Amino acid sequence: MPTTLKKTIFASPQDAEAAFYEALSRGDLEALMAVWAEDEETVCIHPGSGRISGYAAIRDAWAQVFSNGQRLNVRHTLQSHHHDPLTAVHSVLEEIGLHNDPSQRAPVIATNVYVRGALGWRMIVHHASPAPPDTFSTDAPQVLH
Amino acid sequence: MPTTLKKTIFASPQDAEAAFYEALSRGDLEALMAVWAEDEETVCIHPGSGRISGYAAIRDAWAQVFSNGQRLNVRHTLQSHHHDPLTAVHSVLEEIGLHNDPSQRAPVIATNVYVRGALGWRMIVHHASPAPPDTFSTDAPQVLH
Repeated sequence: MPTTLKKTIFASPQDAEAAFYEALSRGDLEALMAVWAEDEETVCIHPGSGRISGYAAIRDAWAQVFSNGQRLNVRHTLQSHHHDPLTAVHSVLEEIGLHNDPSQRAPVIATNVYVRGALGWRMIVHHASPAPPDTFSTDAPQVLH
Repeated sequence: MPTTLKKTIFASPQDAEAAFYEALSRGDLEALMAVWAEDEETVCIHPGSGRISGYAAIRDAWAQVFSNGQRLNVRHTLQSHHHDPLTAVHSVLEEIGLHNDPSQRAPVIATNVYVRGALGWRMIVHHASPAPPDTFSTDAPQVLH
């Protein structure tokens, strides 16, 4: 029920981020968009793609990602973060695979920004870009398992 | 004189960003690193490269960018931003060229994050990734001229 989902209150940036990646793995557009702030200043950059801004355009782009029915399997690891009372910046490594082909996995680096508003924490920036293939073996051996 | 540069106080995120891109175009490592926060939680991602964190590692990577003597010509356009009293997030389009070959220009999307501390505003995140070749013609005709 989208109306309910849009009123989800995330009490922390971590809650918002967990909901974002869960929705991504489920291919659940409504749950994913419930994490985003409804703001024209929001920015989403898919790996290798251009900059998309504004809630409606970002929703359209995610709808397209999910439209082929392909399910994504996303493992994410928070590498570092900066939090202040109103804004949180997370640096995340993602490992993206397809549910039907576990051998194909691509490393992605993401910068996620969340802001605190009347409805809790919401995402305003998701900047994802392809990482070199050796990212998991060299950059973060201690956190991926 | 690096000591002086390190004490540069940027009164706004805009001032820090202007100094960052000026230093980048001049190939001036000291001025560039004066913009960065001296913090282990800083993150720098060069287009197509892995995630680098911490002041020392970020400095080493920029030193390598500048080491071949190749000068970069960088035009940047702020597309959108989110500011709160302690943190500023800028979404920037960069157009990067080589001084000795103006015909080669590559579009890059950057997310820059600045935080306010005792010494004014400093950069804590620079996430840059290659943008599609048609970025300037389709995404932002109104701001690039």
